[in-house]
Amino acid sequence: MPAFPATEYRDRIARVKRRMEAAGVDVLLCAEPASLNYLSGYDGWSFYVHQFLVLALSMDEPVWVGRAMDAPGARLTTFLRPENIEPYPEDYVDAPDRHPARFVAELMKARGYGSARIGLELDAFHFTGRSFAELTKALPDARLVDIYPLVNWARIVKSDLEIEMMRGAAAIVSHAMEVGIAVVAPGVRECDAVAEICAAQLRGTGPYWGDYPSAMPSVPSGAKTAAPHLTWSGDRYPANAVAYLELGGCSHRYHAALARTLYLGQPPRHLVDLAKVVSDGLDRALDGARAGRTCHEVEAAWRAVIEHAGYTKSSRIGYSIGLSYPPDWGERTASLRQGDQTVLEPNMCFHMILGMWREDWGFELSETFRVTAEGPPEILTSFPRDMVVKT
Amino acid sequence: MPAFPATEYRDRIARVKRRMEAAGVDVLLCAEPASLNYLSGYDGWSFYVHQFLVLALSMDEPVWVGRAMDAPGARLTTFLRPENIEPYPEDYVDAPDRHPARFVAELMKARGYGSARIGLELDAFHFTGRSFAELTKALPDARLVDIYPLVNWARIVKSDLEIEMMRGAAAIVSHAMEVGIAVVAPGVRECDAVAEICAAQLRGTGPYWGDYPSAMPSVPSGAKTAAPHLTWSGDRYPANAVAYLELGGCSHRYHAALARTLYLGQPPRHLVDLAKVVSDGLDRALDGARAGRTCHEVEAAWRAVIEHAGYTKSSRIGYSIGLSYPPDWGERTASLRQGDQTVLEPNMCFHMILGMWREDWGFELSETFRVTAEGPPEILTSFPRDMVVKT
Repeated sequence: MPAFPATEYRDRIARVKRRMEAAGVDVLLCAEPASLNYLSGYDGWSFYVHQFLVLALSMDEPVWVGRAMDAPGARLTTFLRPENIEPYPEDYVDAPDRHPARFVAELMKARGYGSARIGLELDAFHFTGRSFAELTKALPDARLVDIYPLVNWARIVKSDLEIEMMRGAAAIVSHAMEVGIAVVAPGVRECDAVAEICAAQLRGTGPYWGDYPSAMPSVPSGAKTAAPHLTWSGDRYPANAVAYLELGGCSHRYHAALARTLYLGQPPRHLVDLAKVVSDGLDRALDGARAGRTCHEVEAAWRAVIEHAGYTKSSRIGYSIGLSYPPDWGERTASLRQGDQTVLEPNMCFHMILGMWREDWGFELSETFRVTAEGPPEILTSFPRDMVVKT
Repeated sequence: MPAFPATEYRDRIARVKRRMEAAGVDVLLCAEPASLNYLSGYDGWSFYVHQFLVLALSMDEPVWVGRAMDAPGARLTTFLRPENIEPYPEDYVDAPDRHPARFVAELMKARGYGSARIGLELDAFHFTGRSFAELTKALPDARLVDIYPLVNWARIVKSDLEIEMMRGAAAIVSHAMEVGIAVVAPGVRECDAVAEICAAQLRGTGPYWGDYPSAMPSVPSGAKTAAPHLTWSGDRYPANAVAYLELGGCSHRYHAALARTLYLGQPPRHLVDLAKVVSDGLDRALDGARAGRTCHEVEAAWRAVIEHAGYTKSSRIGYSIGLSYPPDWGERTASLRQGDQTVLEPNMCFHMILGMWREDWGFELSETFRVTAEGPPEILTSFPRDMVVKT
């Protein structure tokens, strides 16, 4: 029942072990749900309690450590042998006097890693300060090393099988955008638009059923477009206002994202002008996103276009995207921004998101793309780029 | 634009300050999105980057610290004065060489709290091990104290205004259950059922528009019902199989949850028998959930019923529920289980979830309720309790 054949997971384990060796650790303790999935196939909405994956250089496959109730899910969704599924008792959940990190520390000691060099995903959401404090206390002879985001860097170049999942995610989000653009109109409640969009995201399209995206749709209008991460309400879309849709599509936990801007009425001149410049900047930046170039160079191509036209943007224009769980579909590795010297390689995937947030309005345009071996990238998402005008 | 009048937030700040005094801390550093919302109104899907709220005993209102891009959202959704919205620069996002926790440490020093006793939400998801390590380094003269889940305990007794939100959430989830029970049938794809359910959750019902629940629907059938937290796929519901729906409803970030079991065919005897015992156990446990009783006593009433019938259950039968963000609608405070001596008070709310997971099948039945001043609780959710039989 894992999403991929066991050989795919064996390849990943080998790749991660090479990075562990380079980082000088004997054991890796994962807590990010995407790391668990990447190395074992584990998939479930159980990341609201502590769960871990232990991978030592001396192990042929990792050990899943999670809540007793979730062990059946681990048996159903991973390729792991039964002895590598290690549940902790239910009384560790939300308990003031015991902690799952202590359980995993005892397990590592019992398996002979009490004085090992252990890599921690220290800045992973889901790896709490308390987990760090408990491990520090329980493993006095170990050397605890922050290796985050080591597994994320292993994930950044996708296999061909993973790229198939990315294509499915892109087909889903392109379809969801079509649904969203059709439903948003003056007088429609934001929540009703989101309901249609989410239904499209989850039904999927063609052969691709929809998994849940790692972030909910962003569907603001009017002054709310100036604040990129507000969620919706029961407000009705106004007339003569800007609106945008930033959506995710998800196939087997792989993500593509897509943003488009609408104007509900006749768009004002300043918005039409900005849309043209952003579109030109997107063309130039996408054309430059080739194997061998750096993230810095990709951003510089965009920057040249908008600065020439008199605009500025202080935030990054994209990030690596792929396998993930809430709250984020980004991979927290390479960013398309000034100073990021990551060199693009074939089968890296990025969400290039051009968000222009002003004092009381905003504009977004984005694509999800795959870096190819030669030439410009493959644009995975598919939707017309023009600002949509609905009157 | 906050969900409540400013007086509500002032009351909460006063209540939290009393708990801070009792815990012996001068300053509270919050990282759990629900804590930020509770004390300031802040609401946005921005918890995939680091964000904090600082509340000192000497402050009349807290200070929001988040990403520059999200400061407009803080201005739109909180009651805070502009000087109490403190953005960190964009180059702190996913950066190997700088960290937002360092930024908040410098801010606390600049405001005079460099040698204070500072309470941390150490086990909050969203407060990472890296945040803890950075604060420890940057605040050598401070005393860092784990106070988690201090704000959660302040949240457990709801105000009457919050109870109105809980009623809205309960109306939404009751409606979503009706939609879900109607759509699930042999031959229907799981993802299509979830699409209908999510659309109902987000449209809401009557005067209540739907906010996003903190967890996605759980809709397994057949052998997957033995694993409580698996999500759906494109599989079609089989005939002659058990299935259950565990759903959330959300109004302004307040949650109610509800679970019901179906049989797609003529249910086997063992399931009918179990359903009867669980229903009796629910009646008894709910009747006992009165102000002045303990969580332990509520669970014991349930346990007596099922043990008499020859069943056992090792996991808790419920938890405090209310204001929350993904990944969890529980409050991580009181649990309805053996040994939890929390005394029930009026306006505490719980999700009592009776999940009976067996070797290769499972059964769920739940209600969300409010503890009243006298007598049995108010059942907020509203849906017939009988196992649904669809042939």
